[in-house]
Amino acid sequence: MSDHRNRIPTFDDVLSAHERIKPYIHKTPVLTSRYLNELTGAELFFKCENFQKAGAFKVRGACNAVFGLSEDKAALGVATHSSGNHALSLSYAAGRRGIPVTVVMPHTAPQAKKDAVRGYGGKIIECEPSTSSREAVFAKVVAASGADFVHPYNDPRVIAGQATCSLELLSQVPDLDAVIAPIGGGGMISGTCLTLSNLAPEVAIYAAEPLNADDAARSLKAGYIIADDAPNTVADGLKVPLKELTWHFVSHFVSDIFTATEEEIIDAMKLTWKRMKIVIEPSCAVPLATILKNPEIFRGKRVGVIITGGNVDLDTLPWT
Amino acid sequence: MSDHRNRIPTFDDVLSAHERIKPYIHKTPVLTSRYLNELTGAELFFKCENFQKAGAFKVRGACNAVFGLSEDKAALGVATHSSGNHALSLSYAAGRRGIPVTVVMPHTAPQAKKDAVRGYGGKIIECEPSTSSREAVFAKVVAASGADFVHPYNDPRVIAGQATCSLELLSQVPDLDAVIAPIGGGGMISGTCLTLSNLAPEVAIYAAEPLNADDAARSLKAGYIIADDAPNTVADGLKVPLKELTWHFVSHFVSDIFTATEEEIIDAMKLTWKRMKIVIEPSCAVPLATILKNPEIFRGKRVGVIITGGNVDLDTLPWT
Repeated sequence: MSDHRNRIPTFDDVLSAHERIKPYIHKTPVLTSRYLNELTGAELFFKCENFQKAGAFKVRGACNAVFGLSEDKAALGVATHSSGNHALSLSYAAGRRGIPVTVVMPHTAPQAKKDAVRGYGGKIIECEPSTSSREAVFAKVVAASGADFVHPYNDPRVIAGQATCSLELLSQVPDLDAVIAPIGGGGMISGTCLTLSNLAPEVAIYAAEPLNADDAARSLKAGYIIADDAPNTVADGLKVPLKELTWHFVSHFVSDIFTATEEEIIDAMKLTWKRMKIVIEPSCAVPLATILKNPEIFRGKRVGVIITGGNVDLDTLPWT
Repeated sequence: MSDHRNRIPTFDDVLSAHERIKPYIHKTPVLTSRYLNELTGAELFFKCENFQKAGAFKVRGACNAVFGLSEDKAALGVATHSSGNHALSLSYAAGRRGIPVTVVMPHTAPQAKKDAVRGYGGKIIECEPSTSSREAVFAKVVAASGADFVHPYNDPRVIAGQATCSLELLSQVPDLDAVIAPIGGGGMISGTCLTLSNLAPEVAIYAAEPLNADDAARSLKAGYIIADDAPNTVADGLKVPLKELTWHFVSHFVSDIFTATEEEIIDAMKLTWKRMKIVIEPSCAVPLATILKNPEIFRGKRVGVIITGGNVDLDTLPWT
């Protein structure tokens, strides 16, 4: 891995990323719900990345990495490991540029995500559903090919891409008091920190995490990265641990990390489908679950809520 | 029933309705899907009334009727019979005006819709799931109260209200070649005809109907109303027959009525959830099902597709 992978991305990187990826992504809408506002006592602004290309925010970072490659590098293709959305986002981005893409993915990943990766032309190599297995299998793939490694979150190009989501949000909703997003590896939260610390440092940044995979919450309390190897949660996008780059942003800019139980996550997911009529993944229900659980933090506040993705296996819904 | 119930609504009624109901409804967004465009060969513009207040377009007609009542009439309340969405839309409208509302509803109606009616303060009286039972029970309710009868579709106030949906669509999407909407009793289609025949008579109007409840398609071919008493289809909003007012519009302005099987409807519903990340009812999947089935009609055309509602019982999805 070359040195540039360890560079903290800057706000200039975010502005460059936004110009670079604009042709390939949607400016996603912000939705509101009077019902959920009344229920929470807050004014919630849902940034709907479930409507994003490839069904998730991760296409922002993936496109920034893929379209930033030189012609020579691009010709060798890209590769990654991912629990799902980064895999299909990178496949989408590579497909748009017309270069090869290889993905290492746990064999337990939702069928809908595997199908989507292959639908975009990605090649899947399966591993065990643990961080250690995933990284070991991936090391072999990288060694055997000249493909550029696009890490799902611990990559400055990816963080700068994800940061464009909050850039849009700030242009769509004035006077936010807080923004909350789910946290797994921390790519979205890091991008949120990068944009808000530059453009709107007065906005509080919160992260939301499944109690069953609360390594980021424990890391923030401890003051160093705690990584669990194979946590089990319905929020399958949030099982991965923080890494150096995302830890930098989380430790410097996140006010607090709230957790929710599996039942609370599923309830919030179903409530969102029922009242807002949008299909969201379990991962994006974690922020609403924690807002409902911590009303004293959010009441009376204008809160941006990042809905991170909508790639759900409709045949295996968690409440059926 | 007083005479005004049999009056054909005019385009002036539509403009008045739009002013009257604006404070109580959403101007719903129009969504597109590159995937569905590629699949159908058409340019589809989905008018998302699933995001409407009370979760369906029917709130437009209900609000127009409720807020058009004199103070004296309003004080006596309103009543209706409905397979679901009109019931909760009328309950919403009455709730906003603060007047009583009674609904006769088949005991087989989805639990989600019953809960929503009660949530808005509506009183439910149950009947058998047939048009004849529904009308008989309702006659008693009307006789026993002074409530104003707001028919779910055969009412000029309701048709003028539904017509505001196409009024918005025309302002949101230029140069449409066609508009397609599901047809049950014909309220939405009649409103569509009323607006388009006045503002954009060059736009073709198509209706989409479940094959299992194809009374409107057979009516159009026969040249007179054919009414089935108790058809059985997953598209529970489309079981009711045409009536005099809606027949007027359908017979004069609808180019064709296409049908889809139960399996085709469910497939189109699931495809919409999966690719567009929106929660839609089975009824609103019928247009997409018929577009997929009749590519020669729609290929190369700019087509408005009315997504009529999103009130689904999430515990009993038709594909699980």
